[in-house]
Amino acid sequence: MAEGSDDIQALIALMARLPGLGPRSARRIVLHLIRKRNGQMTQLAQLMDNVARNSRECLTCGNITDREQCAICTDPARANGEICVVEDVADLWALERGRAFRGRYHVLGGTLSALDEIGPEDLGIPALIDRIGKEGVREVILALNATVEGQTTAHYIADALADSDVSITGLAQGVPIGGELDYLDDGTISAALRARRSF
Amino acid sequence: MAEGSDDIQALIALMARLPGLGPRSARRIVLHLIRKRNGQMTQLAQLMDNVARNSRECLTCGNITDREQCAICTDPARANGEICVVEDVADLWALERGRAFRGRYHVLGGTLSALDEIGPEDLGIPALIDRIGKEGVREVILALNATVEGQTTAHYIADALADSDVSITGLAQGVPIGGELDYLDDGTISAALRARRSF
Repeated sequence: MAEGSDDIQALIALMARLPGLGPRSARRIVLHLIRKRNGQMTQLAQLMDNVARNSRECLTCGNITDREQCAICTDPARANGEICVVEDVADLWALERGRAFRGRYHVLGGTLSALDEIGPEDLGIPALIDRIGKEGVREVILALNATVEGQTTAHYIADALADSDVSITGLAQGVPIGGELDYLDDGTISAALRARRSF
Repeated sequence: MAEGSDDIQALIALMARLPGLGPRSARRIVLHLIRKRNGQMTQLAQLMDNVARNSRECLTCGNITDREQCAICTDPARANGEICVVEDVADLWALERGRAFRGRYHVLGGTLSALDEIGPEDLGIPALIDRIGKEGVREVILALNATVEGQTTAHYIADALADSDVSITGLAQGVPIGGELDYLDDGTISAALRARRSF
C-alpha cells in the first residue's frame, strides 16, 4: 500500500476515471489536496456533496439547475419567442458564455441513434413541439453539433416542425474567428465558400 | 449565471485551481460528475471528506497516513538499517511503485532554501539524524531530485552525517531505461559517460 491509506488509493482510482485525467494526474491532484486538506479539500468535498444533492434537470428545458425551473427559463428579461435547441448542457453553457443569445433553450440530452435505440421521445422532442405551441415560439434555432448525428437529429426536428409556422434556423457554418485557411479542413472551406457574403 | 447554480460555479472555480486543470477541463469534469451525481459524485465527495479528515503525516517519516505511524514504518518485514531520504511524498510513492527499495523512508517536505527561509529544522533534518542513532541505521540513501536545490540539500545532509559511521549513497545518474542518446541533454550524457561501467 504505497499511497498512504485505502481511502487515498480509492480516491486516486476514482479521480483517475474522470474525463481528461489518468493515474498520474489523479495522484498529483490528490497529493495537492491532502496538502490543503483543511481548506481546499474540505471545501471541495462539501461543494461536491451539495451539487450532487441539489442538482436536477430543469422541468422545462433540461438545463442543470438546483430548482424546478432553471434561471434561464424563469428569467423575465429573456425573449419568449425563441428556443435554441442544443444536444447537451455543455453546449448550452458554451452558448451562454458567448452572450449572443437571449431567448430560451431546449436540451435534448443526446442525438437520435437507431443503434443505441435513442428515439425522439428519449430526447424530449415531443416536449419541444409541445412548448412551441404553448410558449408562442416564432423561431427554433437548431444549434446541434456539425456532426453526422447532430445534423441527422436537426433534420428530424426540422421535419417534425415543417407543418407549424415557426421559422427553423441553424448556426452559420464557415471559417472560425482567428482561423487560418491553411489549417482548416476541406469541408469547412467549401461550406464557407458556398455561404459567401457580399463584403 | 450560465452554469446552473452558484454551487456549480463555485465547484468549477475550485476544480479549475487544481494542478493540471483549467476552466475548460474543470467544466467538463463537473458536468460529467453532475450526470453521475447519485454514484460517482457522492462517492467522490465522501472519500474526499474522509481523506481530508483522516490524513496526517507519519510521526516517524513524514509519509501521508491515516494512523500515527505509516504502513511502511510499522511493517516488520521491511529492513530497519536503511533510510531513503526523499523531498516529497510524491517521490516516496514513485519509489514504492518501483518496488526496488525495502527499507524505511524519511520525507523532508522540501529542500533547503535561503530565499524562502527554509532551514534544516523545517525539513526535519535533526529528526533524521536522531533516527539514525535510534534505529541503528547503516545506510542513508539520498534520493533527492537531480536539481540544484535537491543536490544542495543532499550535500548538506551528507556533511551533517560525515561524523557518523553510516554509509551515505545517492541514486545513480545515467541514461534512463528506453532513453535515446539523441534526445538526452548534454549533462545526462556526460554524467553517464563519467560513471561508465565494465560491460
